[in-house]
Amino acid sequence: MRIAKRIMAFRFEIIKKDPSTRARLGRIETDHGSFTTPAFLPVGTQGSVKSLTPEELVEIGVEAILGNTYHLYLRPGYETIGRLGGLHTFIHWNRPILTDSGGFQIFSLGSLRKVSEEGVAFQSHLDGSSHFLTPEKVMEIQRVLGSDIAMVLDECVPYPSPYEYVKVSVARTSSWAKRCLHVRHENDPALFAIVQGGVHRDLREKSVQTLVELGFQGYAIGGLSVGEPKSMMLDVLEWTTPLLPENAPRYLMGVGTPEDMINAVMLGVDFFDCVLPTRNARNGTLFTSSGKISIKQAQYAEDSRPVDETCGCYTCRHYSRAYLRHLYLSKEILSSRLNTVHNLYYYINLLAGIRDAIQRGRLLDFYQLHASCHGSEPQVDCQSG
Amino acid sequence: MRIAKRIMAFRFEIIKKDPSTRARLGRIETDHGSFTTPAFLPVGTQGSVKSLTPEELVEIGVEAILGNTYHLYLRPGYETIGRLGGLHTFIHWNRPILTDSGGFQIFSLGSLRKVSEEGVAFQSHLDGSSHFLTPEKVMEIQRVLGSDIAMVLDECVPYPSPYEYVKVSVARTSSWAKRCLHVRHENDPALFAIVQGGVHRDLREKSVQTLVELGFQGYAIGGLSVGEPKSMMLDVLEWTTPLLPENAPRYLMGVGTPEDMINAVMLGVDFFDCVLPTRNARNGTLFTSSGKISIKQAQYAEDSRPVDETCGCYTCRHYSRAYLRHLYLSKEILSSRLNTVHNLYYYINLLAGIRDAIQRGRLLDFYQLHASCHGSEPQVDCQSG
Repeated sequence: MRIAKRIMAFRFEIIKKDPSTRARLGRIETDHGSFTTPAFLPVGTQGSVKSLTPEELVEIGVEAILGNTYHLYLRPGYETIGRLGGLHTFIHWNRPILTDSGGFQIFSLGSLRKVSEEGVAFQSHLDGSSHFLTPEKVMEIQRVLGSDIAMVLDECVPYPSPYEYVKVSVARTSSWAKRCLHVRHENDPALFAIVQGGVHRDLREKSVQTLVELGFQGYAIGGLSVGEPKSMMLDVLEWTTPLLPENAPRYLMGVGTPEDMINAVMLGVDFFDCVLPTRNARNGTLFTSSGKISIKQAQYAEDSRPVDETCGCYTCRHYSRAYLRHLYLSKEILSSRLNTVHNLYYYINLLAGIRDAIQRGRLLDFYQLHASCHGSEPQVDCQSG
Repeated sequence: MRIAKRIMAFRFEIIKKDPSTRARLGRIETDHGSFTTPAFLPVGTQGSVKSLTPEELVEIGVEAILGNTYHLYLRPGYETIGRLGGLHTFIHWNRPILTDSGGFQIFSLGSLRKVSEEGVAFQSHLDGSSHFLTPEKVMEIQRVLGSDIAMVLDECVPYPSPYEYVKVSVARTSSWAKRCLHVRHENDPALFAIVQGGVHRDLREKSVQTLVELGFQGYAIGGLSVGEPKSMMLDVLEWTTPLLPENAPRYLMGVGTPEDMINAVMLGVDFFDCVLPTRNARNGTLFTSSGKISIKQAQYAEDSRPVDETCGCYTCRHYSRAYLRHLYLSKEILSSRLNTVHNLYYYINLLAGIRDAIQRGRLLDFYQLHASCHGSEPQVDCQSG
């Protein structure tokens, strides 16, 4: 196990391209197995995809997950995880793990952080303790965690931000990416760069150009889904993906809704992570083949049907809407579990449908069918996050 | 299914008696299958054994569970559950369910309830709404829930209570038990009476005598584990069980610790329910073969061992104390799940050990071995609840 670890395998293979869009069907191979793309990676913020076991994730069809460096760095600490055999062993997940760099969380801290060319100083949201992360440090942390795919430290700016500030952040993100490359070890995780540039085409282009010249194993598109209009997100993808190398995977960070993902796949994105399905689940919002429903509504009080009669998940096979409503109103822990199983199954199944459509060269048909199904219940807003 | 329901099967069979104690190995048969005794029934207060699925309960070895009439009556309502096919269907549990009568919860409401000969008026802890439960009403509720074993409405007095008040409550409990019998339907659940009488030998004897004369399918011993010293609980059992019919099961309500259960089995008790293992789990207190541990302690921060190296539960097979501590401190939902799996497995396995010892005629040896193992870590208090 430890010997195998020293020869880090990472490979991205494109299996098929959709004839009518930029979508690609592919496979990413890592030391901990492979996952097919387009893919959705559930978020295991603190070393747990909230409420579920690894076996349940596998049963749902999850092939890879994301861990948050910021949270794990603060608690229980990356050195602790390292001494306990790495993140995979610690959390009992032996498939691919992507770790973010902590950048997004740190930049979300607002007044608790201070950025400089050297790195970013911040105070823990847990206990107020002071920390300083640099590009080199986040490489060390992700190395010790034993991640399969590591991300560079980046500066993620909110929307809207002044052009001049976005320009500075793009330059800083490129400079930090270069420093990450400089401290790579032979047995390190695969390293992905992060394209920034807000909603400015020239800055996005500049960001891509610099990062691609440096050369990474994959490219993430960051700084989206931070408050900008949906159409702007699609514009940014429209501009960005053609400039990225064909043979490297493209990762759209923190996105999104089912519709966001379908649109992004058609624009050439290979995988996603997002807390939406898991967080929505805990809040009682469930995805169905005809739109979202809020399980707490009184109309479900005696509804013996499953959440979605077309769904094959554990929750839909065994429980009624009435029971799920009861568990939600009663604040039962099982509510979060059953809802999370359903929502993740919906997401994983959606991505499987997308891959199948690409395989058959029919992604546009899939897109249109999805859009029309979700229009069938007009009271449901499929577009909102 | 519905036709089978009309011929309610209930049978208690004694398989073997321990030669040195009053312990009995037995089996209780119901319409939803059987469970072996001595048994521990986890509590599914609001239609869920907190945090677990029915499949997990079965994997742990749980054969029967308890549901709380008080909670289910208030939310989602027994008529709703009835219209949805009964409690078994509603919660996806097709094995035996015992329902309490609501008496214990109502009497725990303190100033929110008012007892009379007719019944008990109380205000909901959820919304303050006013309700009135009678012996006849709790029979109807448990009938509609589709319980396998129903309990009579009883008056459970706190410890200590004035002798005269306990005397009145014993008379009322007997009178209410009689009224429950009078409204029985042919296809009703098995009906258990509840012996009361506080810590007064003459009142316990009086309670047993009246109830046994009325004749029930089983007898619960109530009003214990309500604050009285442990030795008093054992005294009450010592006095009570010899007066109960040999061929009816004896149920000690709301008890208890592992030690309580072993002692009570030796005094002739057949089964138990208690929130202790599940509630302790959620609070991070875990039972082990050498006593209880509090998983949040700093000593476990980098402890790669399972909770209990002799335990075969899912949690101990896959997770370290360090990870369980991390989940607990991070308030992750998975913490409650993994801890509950472990504690329930401990309880179920303990009862399996007790049954095996009775089968072999060696319960006293089992008792002594258990006591000595739990004395091996003097910093741990095995006796406290």
